[in-house]
Amino acid sequence: MRVIGIDPGTRHLGWGIVRVQGTRLSAEDYGIVDLDGRLSIAERLLQIDRALGEILRVHEPEVAAVESLFFAKDAQAASKLGHARGVILLLLAKAAIPIHEVEPARVKRAVTGRGRADKRQVALMVKAVLGLRELPGVDATDALAVAITHAQQVFFERAVHRGGR
Amino acid sequence: MRVIGIDPGTRHLGWGIVRVQGTRLSAEDYGIVDLDGRLSIAERLLQIDRALGEILRVHEPEVAAVESLFFAKDAQAASKLGHARGVILLLLAKAAIPIHEVEPARVKRAVTGRGRADKRQVALMVKAVLGLRELPGVDATDALAVAITHAQQVFFERAVHRGGR
Repeated sequence: MRVIGIDPGTRHLGWGIVRVQGTRLSAEDYGIVDLDGRLSIAERLLQIDRALGEILRVHEPEVAAVESLFFAKDAQAASKLGHARGVILLLLAKAAIPIHEVEPARVKRAVTGRGRADKRQVALMVKAVLGLRELPGVDATDALAVAITHAQQVFFERAVHRGGR
Repeated sequence: MRVIGIDPGTRHLGWGIVRVQGTRLSAEDYGIVDLDGRLSIAERLLQIDRALGEILRVHEPEVAAVESLFFAKDAQAASKLGHARGVILLLLAKAAIPIHEVEPARVKRAVTGRGRADKRQVALMVKAVLGLRELPGVDATDALAVAITHAQQVFFERAVHRGGR
């Protein structure tokens, strides 16, 4: 199974494809889509649509894990991020890819065991779990962490299910 | 020229096509896309994409006027509305239709001469300006008001431009 993790943003969009084989996780590919801040929001949404559309065509992930917004930022920031997320969710829905929303706190807990891990700890664990030689950029790391969190959640649910039999 | 006015929403999306002939405005068509609240946000975004895509194909508007969000609501509401607006702006950008964002206060000022008009006053003026026999639903009325506001702004700018020669 291939899980695409997505860290939405209006300036940088992080993505990562995590391959799940049994309980083994590996990174198939990852990257950051840099959006041109001089462009209008509509033109940046076009950029997201094209870039992510191409990533979905190339990698054909079966499941998507998208970071949800649980922050106390102002309405303006939430609205901007909402625009980007809307385009992302639409693309995934059009490709009939099931979407799992993953809270930032759950990512930190899954990756480091605590809800308040810092960026560096998340990055080091992503590197270790996926056996990466080098650290990806921060947005790609976050996207991979989101995909790992979802994959681990699936392992956990399977284990509980087996235990319940 | 045909202007499409759009009042974005996550439960109801109002739209209206205003035809501009000289300084005469008329309503070509209008309506409300009702979104199924039981569906996931991604599925509702698909509904918006399909419905608005069809409206653009049928009416081929040259310009779009979209209500902007200048409210002090919470981040969660702003995010939700942002998702819908993101999909709307993407569709318009894909169709290469220029987008004008119109603030709610400007709509009220344009339609009634004041920034604090109530819904009913806006509705009555929309009906009068467009020569409608009956009042459209509230979301369609708002969308038509947004289109009228943009058209009047264009008249104003043309008049200033002529005056300056």
